[in-house]
Amino acid sequence: MTETVGNEAVLKTQNSLKRSIDDGVDKTDSPSTAVKRPVIVPACRPRLQYTPLKTGLCYDVRMRYHAKIFTSYFEYIDPHPEDPRRIYRIYKILAENGLVNDPTLSGVDDIGDLMLKIPVREATDAEILQVHTKEHLDFLSRTPQMTRDQLLKETEKGDSVYFNNDSFLSAKLSCGGAIEACKAVVEGRVKNALAVVRPPGHHAEPELAGGFCLFSNVAVAAQNMLKNYPESVRKIMVLDWDVHHGNGTQKAFYNDDRVLYISLHRHEPGKYYPGTIHGNYDRIGEGKGEGFNCNIPWPCGGLGDAEYLWAFEQVVMPMSREFQPDLVIISSGFDAADGDTIGQCHVTPSCYGHMTHMLKSLAKGNLCVVLEGGYSLDSIAKSALGVAKVLIGEPPDELPVIKQPKSEAVEIIDTVIRTQSKYWKCFKSTHANDGCSFKQKVTNTIINKNFPLQSAIRQQQMRHLTSEFSFVTLPLFKMDLPDDTVICSPNIYDSQAIIICVHDTPEIWAQRSRVTGTIDPSMSIIIDTTLDVIKWAFEKNYGVIDINIPQSLHEQDNYSAVTTAQEVLVFIWDNYLKYFPVLNKVAFVGIGDAHSGIVHLLGHRDTRSVVKSAISFIDQRPLRPLIPLVDESLADWYYKNSLVFASTENTCWGSDGNENKKPRKKFGRVLKCDSDGLNNNIEERFNEATDFILDTFEEWSDSE
Amino acid sequence: MTETVGNEAVLKTQNSLKRSIDDGVDKTDSPSTAVKRPVIVPACRPRLQYTPLKTGLCYDVRMRYHAKIFTSYFEYIDPHPEDPRRIYRIYKILAENGLVNDPTLSGVDDIGDLMLKIPVREATDAEILQVHTKEHLDFLSRTPQMTRDQLLKETEKGDSVYFNNDSFLSAKLSCGGAIEACKAVVEGRVKNALAVVRPPGHHAEPELAGGFCLFSNVAVAAQNMLKNYPESVRKIMVLDWDVHHGNGTQKAFYNDDRVLYISLHRHEPGKYYPGTIHGNYDRIGEGKGEGFNCNIPWPCGGLGDAEYLWAFEQVVMPMSREFQPDLVIISSGFDAADGDTIGQCHVTPSCYGHMTHMLKSLAKGNLCVVLEGGYSLDSIAKSALGVAKVLIGEPPDELPVIKQPKSEAVEIIDTVIRTQSKYWKCFKSTHANDGCSFKQKVTNTIINKNFPLQSAIRQQQMRHLTSEFSFVTLPLFKMDLPDDTVICSPNIYDSQAIIICVHDTPEIWAQRSRVTGTIDPSMSIIIDTTLDVIKWAFEKNYGVIDINIPQSLHEQDNYSAVTTAQEVLVFIWDNYLKYFPVLNKVAFVGIGDAHSGIVHLLGHRDTRSVVKSAISFIDQRPLRPLIPLVDESLADWYYKNSLVFASTENTCWGSDGNENKKPRKKFGRVLKCDSDGLNNNIEERFNEATDFILDTFEEWSDSE
Repeated sequence: MTETVGNEAVLKTQNSLKRSIDDGVDKTDSPSTAVKRPVIVPACRPRLQYTPLKTGLCYDVRMRYHAKIFTSYFEYIDPHPEDPRRIYRIYKILAENGLVNDPTLSGVDDIGDLMLKIPVREATDAEILQVHTKEHLDFLSRTPQMTRDQLLKETEKGDSVYFNNDSFLSAKLSCGGAIEACKAVVEGRVKNALAVVRPPGHHAEPELAGGFCLFSNVAVAAQNMLKNYPESVRKIMVLDWDVHHGNGTQKAFYNDDRVLYISLHRHEPGKYYPGTIHGNYDRIGEGKGEGFNCNIPWPCGGLGDAEYLWAFEQVVMPMSREFQPDLVIISSGFDAADGDTIGQCHVTPSCYGHMTHMLKSLAKGNLCVVLEGGYSLDSIAKSALGVAKVLIGEPPDELPVIKQPKSEAVEIIDTVIRTQSKYWKCFKSTHANDGCSFKQKVTNTIINKNFPLQSAIRQQQMRHLTSEFSFVTLPLFKMDLPDDTVICSPNIYDSQAIIICVHDTPEIWAQRSRVTGTIDPSMSIIIDTTLDVIKWAFEKNYGVIDINIPQSLHEQDNYSAVTTAQEVLVFIWDNYLKYFPVLNKVAFVGIGDAHSGIVHLLGHRDTRSVVKSAISFIDQRPLRPLIPLVDESLADWYYKNSLVFASTENTCWGSDGNENKKPRKKFGRVLKCDSDGLNNNIEERFNEATDFILDTFEEWSDSE
Repeated sequence: MTETVGNEAVLKTQNSLKRSIDDGVDKTDSPSTAVKRPVIVPACRPRLQYTPLKTGLCYDVRMRYHAKIFTSYFEYIDPHPEDPRRIYRIYKILAENGLVNDPTLSGVDDIGDLMLKIPVREATDAEILQVHTKEHLDFLSRTPQMTRDQLLKETEKGDSVYFNNDSFLSAKLSCGGAIEACKAVVEGRVKNALAVVRPPGHHAEPELAGGFCLFSNVAVAAQNMLKNYPESVRKIMVLDWDVHHGNGTQKAFYNDDRVLYISLHRHEPGKYYPGTIHGNYDRIGEGKGEGFNCNIPWPCGGLGDAEYLWAFEQVVMPMSREFQPDLVIISSGFDAADGDTIGQCHVTPSCYGHMTHMLKSLAKGNLCVVLEGGYSLDSIAKSALGVAKVLIGEPPDELPVIKQPKSEAVEIIDTVIRTQSKYWKCFKSTHANDGCSFKQKVTNTIINKNFPLQSAIRQQQMRHLTSEFSFVTLPLFKMDLPDDTVICSPNIYDSQAIIICVHDTPEIWAQRSRVTGTIDPSMSIIIDTTLDVIKWAFEKNYGVIDINIPQSLHEQDNYSAVTTAQEVLVFIWDNYLKYFPVLNKVAFVGIGDAHSGIVHLLGHRDTRSVVKSAISFIDQRPLRPLIPLVDESLADWYYKNSLVFASTENTCWGSDGNENKKPRKKFGRVLKCDSDGLNNNIEERFNEATDFILDTFEEWSDSE
């Protein structure tokens, strides 16, 4: 403890030196000097001379000793991704670019004017035990004495980890390196630091190694700073941009309000390593730590600069500025880097530079970057260079390509903001009313005085069709649905040809106040996408059935809407269409989720004698397969007689680099629109759709 | 022209030196050296040694000669705000804090290790004429020879400018200083630069001085860079954070796509200097320059760090990163700084540092800061220090206070993003459908297949009141309004007491997809704020009249809604209420803009024999005065018998520091709610409002 207090004292002197450029408050010379001895003083004497500090660098060749024991020849050709050369390649690129002066790359101590070598030491047991269990430490401490077979057996047993006789040493050095790097920053010996260490740490949970990680380096370092510098380090932000979720770090501080953990990672949902629910956006910390954990879980791979910068400016920076950390640690995996085959993302070296630059604005520049994953040797070297250049004071490079952030990313970030808005002022301005979920809102108030909008919209639609085309209600006996669910043209019973429109409740185009979260109805429009189809059918003298499928009142659960569509269509077939005397041509037009009702009916009944075609507009909604319960040939028939228009953004087209992906036949003839949005898709393909219906109706006449 | 080409050559060599730390692509030594002479080369030789550059500083005492000719003694005590000491105080604080080494503050040439003095010269006629007209230049060139009287006469004639015999020299130096500072950055002699110059420039239009500005310094410098460095400077971003709109700079590049001009300024709307529409958000450039002008017009004063950082992260940074400028110039007025009595905003020195830090990430750090306005000598000095520290490489200080950005600011920024989303990819993700205005949307599509939402909502409301309380329609003969505008309880003709509810169309609480801009109706709720009032009245056995005032279908124009409310209420009074046989107690409840109908009626008819009270919930909407056309005593009567509940955020309460502002009597008894939002206001004050009605009804019974 004595040592601790001493440290703190040293720290304060040095920090005040480091921060010699003060806030510019005007202070006159102290009166005592001015009065006693009248000497000539210059008009202006700087209060303290500014001393630029270097950037710290942790690197030690001994961390290359931890390596996978080869068990087959192929491991020479295709080595384990967590490769000892990872740290060497980073050191090398720093030297090649003049940041480190070490021509022989041997790891010298004096590395020049820009960076300061921080000696690496082994983390002590006491330090490691601040985060890890005794059992975990004991297990690792036995590995140096294990036989090859024992090591291989433990390697086999673990969750994506390997061991050799040097693993314990390397792991303690890696952990100690992270501690020393943070310490040098906190004590003001360097302006910031880069710890080029391995094995990585953020997957190592208190009781368990995992995901190539043995000790939770960053967690141990953070605990160490909080303990040893209680006055100057009260709050730490850990920003984890490794492409994997840092489950170990999260767990170490899940109940702790002193450490804000923010992670950007692939999640999709829970399928990507480490593959648990703990990486989801709703994991926000517990107890005192509630609101101090923030996961930004990407729903897909293929993301890059646009999405990362979006996340930084929308979430990371406002939140962390509000947190006001005393130290920022980057858990810096480079596996989201362009070129990393495990991460399959496209973050460029300059984007890493931009993100580092942003984080440098926090905590008076007290920033420590600690290496985590990243498995393409070229990519991690370039990325680390991008970071290091910004650390020493260079501006970040220009971004090579400017793209629009993908909608999946924008949506999840919006969800994150909604979730975190309960805890952070910075998100309250735009999400003041989003603290409670839709479900709560419904439960709290719908009974008293609030009404769901969809019934109002359907009534409006019905009024229009009634007054314009004399539509009438088609009763759905015994089904618990609103009366206005199915309406039809009055000539339906005597029609030879009927167009059946099945659609979700029309969307609304609106301007929402970002502040109150409410919408001014006078500035909002119901976009009735089905009306064009109905008008067209009416002009052709076809009968028309219009079916509105109310969506379920539960967030992110349209299961009931899909089953409703299915039940309604089967009911109409079984109770009406089958008995219409002269009916011999039917075409379906499905819009939105409701189209699943069509696919269901066509698979469950043999409707081929009258149904001639089925058109669906599904925008970004999922494809629905036809399951041919009646007859195997139904699927072929469906493919021949259907058109399914999907948005250009529909995920069925695959992500980048997989442009020619083609959905299978059971989904019908799926066509890619050039546009996005139901309304736009229909506008774009209206003529193609109606021509197709006409063709199928025509063919039938011919063959008769 | 020869000189120009020469410059460009020098520039390229130096820039490559400056950017010696390259992108880390592995290049082997050239084969010629490698093959011919086999020498021992070290394993790693940096390609180019990194040479840190200083920050440039322009300062010249001669710019202090331009000063206002004193015409009264009071100008000694309270000098003109554009005070010659402005630049001295900035230079002094830099020296006091060790950034500049000049103990005698005399303006020496060698100023130490951190900054490099850039010599200031007069801008040439040719340079000035790149932006300004010959007439303007000729006029200023005559000022050195003018008599005192002539100078005073010109000062009188001008728009907030003054002249003395040195004005022309100082203005040319100020302009030349801006040029030289940019030049030093572009040529790579300094890493960035700070031009401490005056008189300022951004209000000077090509043909006219104005707003303390003689030549448009930044515009001239930008034109100069574009002309003289055509290869390396193709695009320039000018970021103007002076609290006033830079009309001069905007005008100089309004048709130019090479210069992106972004300005943050008080506008409110068009009332703040320079007081024209040109500073509004819809001024987006013309011709080739369309989409390259971005105004962020604050609707009020009192803003600070929260709003500026919000604007930077939401608008400035995404847009400017996408623009990819080769040079960034900050038109750096410090009149939005905390302590400036003209700007009345609260931007702190550390926030200026944070903004500078963000802008440093653009254009590979090529950043030139040019002084504009700012009139508190202390504030500008501290603010300039905040900027300068970041320029030399220090991290910005922590922000002193973290606040939530004000809703007015968030809303205008959202409007700016909507407006700019037509031109910038970065805004398309969240505002894809907002490119066209609501008006366009209505005009384009309403006739075909889209319906305004408000009629659907009113129908829903009517259905509910009809089925629950047997309400019926009250016809409005001859008025061109929907049938469902006025509905009432069936007992209305025989009631002694009637509650008349006048309201806007109910709001909707919804979640809007940030990507498509549409709203899922199944996830949206109509918030019917009037239903509680109607239920209460029904339980008391009062008659009820419910009046829905449809909002006008024109953006930001609710004039027609207000007049509709007035006409409807007068109509109901003249044609119904006056003739009801037993009616002797009426209370009005106004909700939203519609409440203006009540105030209008009470001023235009003497209703005092039956009307007992008038309650209004106006949220953030403007107060409406009662104009007593019948009898002067009406205003007193209204004050006594009304309660007007305004949101805690209503502007009638004044901005900060004016907490005790009290609206005048003609607006009724205005009370401040603790909450914001119609719904919340009503919930909070429902009992108070209904008790008040009961009291006024009671009193009447007593006095009878």
